[in-house]
Amino acid sequence: MQFTAKDIAALLNGTVEGDELVAVDQLAKIEEAQKGSLSFLANPKYEQFLYSTNASIVIVNNTQQLTGPVGATLIRVENAYSAFTLLLEKYNTFKLYKEGIEQPSFIHESATIGENPYIGAFAYIGQGVKTGKNCKIYPNCYIADNVTLGDNVTLFPGVVVYFDCVIGSNVIIHSGAVIGSDGFGFAPNGDGSYTKIAQIGNVIIEDNVEIGSNTTIDRATMGSTIIRRGAKIDNLIMIAHNVEIGSHTVMAAQSGISGSTKIGSRVVIGGQVGFAGHLNIADGSQFGAQTGINHTIKEENKQWGGSPHLPYKDYLRAHVNIRRLPDLELRVRELEKMIKDLKKDVQ
Amino acid sequence: MQFTAKDIAALLNGTVEGDELVAVDQLAKIEEAQKGSLSFLANPKYEQFLYSTNASIVIVNNTQQLTGPVGATLIRVENAYSAFTLLLEKYNTFKLYKEGIEQPSFIHESATIGENPYIGAFAYIGQGVKTGKNCKIYPNCYIADNVTLGDNVTLFPGVVVYFDCVIGSNVIIHSGAVIGSDGFGFAPNGDGSYTKIAQIGNVIIEDNVEIGSNTTIDRATMGSTIIRRGAKIDNLIMIAHNVEIGSHTVMAAQSGISGSTKIGSRVVIGGQVGFAGHLNIADGSQFGAQTGINHTIKEENKQWGGSPHLPYKDYLRAHVNIRRLPDLELRVRELEKMIKDLKKDVQ
Amino acid sequence: MQFTAKDIAALLNGTVEGDELVAVDQLAKIEEAQKGSLSFLANPKYEQFLYSTNASIVIVNNTQQLTGPVGATLIRVENAYSAFTLLLEKYNTFKLYKEGIEQPSFIHESATIGENPYIGAFAYIGQGVKTGKNCKIYPNCYIADNVTLGDNVTLFPGVVVYFDCVIGSNVIIHSGAVIGSDGFGFAPNGDGSYTKIAQIGNVIIEDNVEIGSNTTIDRATMGSTIIRRGAKIDNLIMIAHNVEIGSHTVMAAQSGISGSTKIGSRVVIGGQVGFAGHLNIADGSQFGAQTGINHTIKEENKQWGGSPHLPYKDYLRAHVNIRRLPDLELRVRELEKMIKDLKKDVQ
Repeated sequence: MQFTAKDIAALLNGTVEGDELVAVDQLAKIEEAQKGSLSFLANPKYEQFLYSTNASIVIVNNTQQLTGPVGATLIRVENAYSAFTLLLEKYNTFKLYKEGIEQPSFIHESATIGENPYIGAFAYIGQGVKTGKNCKIYPNCYIADNVTLGDNVTLFPGVVVYFDCVIGSNVIIHSGAVIGSDGFGFAPNGDGSYTKIAQIGNVIIEDNVEIGSNTTIDRATMGSTIIRRGAKIDNLIMIAHNVEIGSHTVMAAQSGISGSTKIGSRVVIGGQVGFAGHLNIADGSQFGAQTGINHTIKEENKQWGGSPHLPYKDYLRAHVNIRRLPDLELRVRELEKMIKDLKKDVQ
Repeated sequence: MQFTAKDIAALLNGTVEGDELVAVDQLAKIEEAQKGSLSFLANPKYEQFLYSTNASIVIVNNTQQLTGPVGATLIRVENAYSAFTLLLEKYNTFKLYKEGIEQPSFIHESATIGENPYIGAFAYIGQGVKTGKNCKIYPNCYIADNVTLGDNVTLFPGVVVYFDCVIGSNVIIHSGAVIGSDGFGFAPNGDGSYTKIAQIGNVIIEDNVEIGSNTTIDRATMGSTIIRRGAKIDNLIMIAHNVEIGSHTVMAAQSGISGSTKIGSRVVIGGQVGFAGHLNIADGSQFGAQTGINHTIKEENKQWGGSPHLPYKDYLRAHVNIRRLPDLELRVRELEKMIKDLKKDVQ
Repeated sequence: MQFTAKDIAALLNGTVEGDELVAVDQLAKIEEAQKGSLSFLANPKYEQFLYSTNASIVIVNNTQQLTGPVGATLIRVENAYSAFTLLLEKYNTFKLYKEGIEQPSFIHESATIGENPYIGAFAYIGQGVKTGKNCKIYPNCYIADNVTLGDNVTLFPGVVVYFDCVIGSNVIIHSGAVIGSDGFGFAPNGDGSYTKIAQIGNVIIEDNVEIGSNTTIDRATMGSTIIRRGAKIDNLIMIAHNVEIGSHTVMAAQSGISGSTKIGSRVVIGGQVGFAGHLNIADGSQFGAQTGINHTIKEENKQWGGSPHLPYKDYLRAHVNIRRLPDLELRVRELEKMIKDLKKDVQ
């Protein structure tokens, strides 16, 4: 599929400078672009690439001044970065376009499938499931009994959703994610062994959430594990039973949250972070990678690091001091020697 | 499905106080319960909820005294907590009831399937597989050649069991768990590259084990990786080749055990803990979250924390000292100044 | 399947000492071997097992001297370890032999399947996919549109490869691994919420790479996430968008690499290690388990540990000092007391 500078300018409401019939079939970074690519320049810091790029078309800001000859056709727009993001989005929508119901798939007769679905081969849709409009359920997904999906939900191949879970609209879940498996709850029997506590709650995922591949979100013992509107959850993350993640909170890969902890809104969590159970974490908190959080945080919008966690500046200072420990020990030894000598002198 | 107080009291061998025809259709915590819910009160600390709850029925201990008016119907039993757990269990058994063999599924002609199975659509059962009674193999599971399952095994959707593995009775494995993938074994070729060492052993999972979603347990190079009776393994855990996990050991999510390490019985392992390879860990050891264990532990029933691990109290004390390091450095600087002044005075 | 000492000696180009008709049907470690097993002795340190083993056949080096009576039949070869590894490999090839196309599977009419394939039931092969010779695609795998596989690729059950990814020859990917899911890229909207940035790049996996179960490798935003020739990636590893892993680099389980970081060749990474984003890591670097790396490393072939990372020796020394901190604090307190007393004496 090829698009001309003219086509793209029309789409972006931009103006063409150069050959408006030049065509592109891929998107690339300006410094890596080859002939036939479309690229963009938003940050003036990278202006030099505009004069050396092999891209056939470059989208630039209306305000972009030129200080040399440019080989590429330019498309001038209000905001080059936004315009390019829009093209990425359109490209992806095109690449990911799927429709219809492939065979063999398993759709229980009691399930209600919304308009314009894609249901891939070997997908399984259980009893009483309800899906909204434009849902894409890729091959090998499993949606258990009584699950509901809102509109425009995408489940990539191999997603599993256990029974009774509720998924909002515009939710994207990547391959291998497991939603609603049993919480880790066992009662000790007194002889060293354990009895399983049945986990009868569910998981609720609100609108505009994205969940990464192979992440696991356990169902509540009773009630719901909740992922609030707009939260973004990366790959290989563990969210335990009865956890609540606030709206627009962002979690990087391999982090984990223990049972019943409530994370506020707009919290930013680095990779490989761990939270103990039954904590409350204030809105806007930020955590560096590998932080370990073992008590409730009440002050909003603070930064934290280390395990156990400290205010981020204290964590950095402590680490500088740790590096200097051998030196500090030498200084103490020297002091001990000096004081011993001094005592002799005084006596 | 609705149940009356009379029905439930009969099931629990309890006695009704109040309207024995009041009906419930869900289970909830006493402080969150709505009309139509059944709840319980076991801990006297929460007695106040008994007088304010909206639950229609509350299960209480025979010994529970009342100090105010109660709106809910009570069911008195010997042990309210156990009785409620039993109801959770029954509720779940009902919700998870599945039977029969769905189509299309793939069952090799040489496989032996025990009585009363559930085999979901798109499940794959290989050559020579043997399953016991009442096994539930959900959709999209893969059971490779010559695997054996005991009685009452549940494999949730998408579980993969590689060839020759042995799974005991009453084992539950959650979605996406992989049992028996190749151990990570490579021999260096001398030129920087590696040759794979074939991993021909298997995994043995004994009775009453539960394994969480997306956990991976690698097969032994030779011999067996073994998970002993009653162990409980949470989500996203890594168990490497030739590891052995003792009976009734409990591991929280995202922990990992390197090759050939033997973990004792009744060990308790927090989240995101890591064990080096070729260690022996004594029975009853306990590890805080994010602990890193790099040598064998011979003393039983001790608590550990930190990375590398220290006795838990030493770990806590070290961290208090780390926070005070800037202060300690100031004290040393002060001493250096004082001693310099003193020396002047003495000379 | 049984093999005689004569058969095996012929295969290994070795010479038999003892009964050349004795037969074996399994491979085992010399100290665990039972009757009917074949074992090996390469390391002279374990020579005593040669006189006590129950193995029916033991492979030994040509140079192996005997200092006592041996019950097993011996096969003498140039290099006992290599010979045994070869047998492991042959055993595994036999165990894992699969061929043909099982039904039901889904193969798009536009896909090109190379010679001698195995395609398991419920596998899905999308539009425009091309596979080389001898590829084994196990059940429940999903290969999206326009993916290409080289020769001799094995995808174990449940592997997912998103569209446009490129996989070289002799690549092994274990169950549940997800290749090419979206990178974690979101642009802040200014009101606390985020807009997804479409991820239109791909993943390129070069020849001779092995990838463990439930590992996730995200596609690039633009361009490619690249795993170079011969790299070995263990289970439950996270590789973010636009990362590059050098040739023959080895990563142990549960490690993670943040976006755009470039890891050199022959790097060795322990378990649960984390790398921040946008770093460059020199060839031959080595990282202890649980290391956290937060800046670029330019010196090659160095060892690192701790979080944030330090040269490995400094990390070990710092930890010794941390354990001694309570003692150091006491020494400073003692100095403070002494100097106070001294001052009194001097005045």
